Amino acid sequence: MQKTQRTTIKRVPQRANYDLPTIHKIIDEAYVCSLGFQNEDSVHVIPTVHWRIGNTLYIHGATKSRLIHCAISQSVCINITLLDGLVLARSAFHHSMNYRSLNIYGRGFQVVDAEKEDVLTTFVEKITPERIGEIRMMNKQELKATTVVGFNIEEAVAKIRTGPPVDDKEDYALPVWAGVIPLRLQQGEPVEDK
Amino acid sequence: MQKTQRTTIKRVPQRANYDLPTIHKIIDEAYVCSLGFQNEDSVHVIPTVHWRIGNTLYIHGATKSRLIHCAISQSVCINITLLDGLVLARSAFHHSMNYRSLNIYGRGFQVVDAEKEDVLTTFVEKITPERIGEIRMMNKQELKATTVVGFNIEEAVAKIRTGPPVDDKEDYALPVWAGVIPLRLQQGEPVEDK
Repeated sequence: MQKTQRTTIKRVPQRANYDLPTIHKIIDEAYVCSLGFQNEDSVHVIPTVHWRIGNTLYIHGATKSRLIHCAISQSVCINITLLDGLVLARSAFHHSMNYRSLNIYGRGFQVVDAEKEDVLTTFVEKITPERIGEIRMMNKQELKATTVVGFNIEEAVAKIRTGPPVDDKEDYALPVWAGVIPLRLQQGEPVEDK
Repeated sequence: MQKTQRTTIKRVPQRANYDLPTIHKIIDEAYVCSLGFQNEDSVHVIPTVHWRIGNTLYIHGATKSRLIHCAISQSVCINITLLDGLVLARSAFHHSMNYRSLNIYGRGFQVVDAEKEDVLTTFVEKITPERIGEIRMMNKQELKATTVVGFNIEEAVAKIRTGPPVDDKEDYALPVWAGVIPLRLQQGEPVEDK
């Protein structure tokens, strides 16, 4: 993907990544993005669930919500962050995190008519694929109350850190454990609603 | 905590929470916040690690970074989101997430001199308490390259969903599994840097 002024990483630029498959993988692995927008002279950051079809990221929300209104009326910033590990170095200064952070910039478009229902079905498939066909799908009134907004992924950048700590040469001799503690969002035992 | 215009929740307002201990707990449980700010006519959302002492949230960064510059020169929005579960309902429409989402609004202040070192030590204690005293602490040059910014938590709101799915009455008869799949960021097996 082409760099733009706002997708040019200045701090540790070697962590920047503009590769579309890498960007798609971050989107697919995360449930929630953080959507940043401007409203009434203030910046707001609101988490919302997202999903992807092709090169479009989708969110949904109540038709009357501020988030949805702002997403289609201004260029917003969507960040998705996956924490992959605590990087424990031999010096306090070189402690770090392994992470994949993705920023997408752009203005959303509203998804309508038959496409809206299809796109929402893809969302249910992401969250709970095995239950499609079992749950009751959306009726007309529910569809009407829900707005789906798509973002074409045309201006985006991932920033990624992987691997062990990087210490100053002289600190490698220190008698202290150093390495990475992996982090992962994991599912626990399902709790049935009886 | 007192509500303000921008901490008044309009969508599902019964999920709003202004209780300081609840807010502190969300901050302490998360490693990373999403900081939203305005720069060059665009909103940006950047993840950064955070920690807390009393009623102040701290972040740190390279002294010359844009994030740090913006954090102390404008009122920013900090969001912290903890995903607690996938809420699988009997109808597509009532699927949801259990989450704790916290928004803090305000302008940061720079932490200087001896306090800066103390505040950074608290950060290392959060990430790796057992290694304080073993790792090499920051030298003068490293301290100089690091800026610490504090945010007094004076304008904040948490939005929290807990519990089972809430379906329409007639859907409870559907023969489909419903309930919550808990989610938690978990540590894996440490990988030593040899």
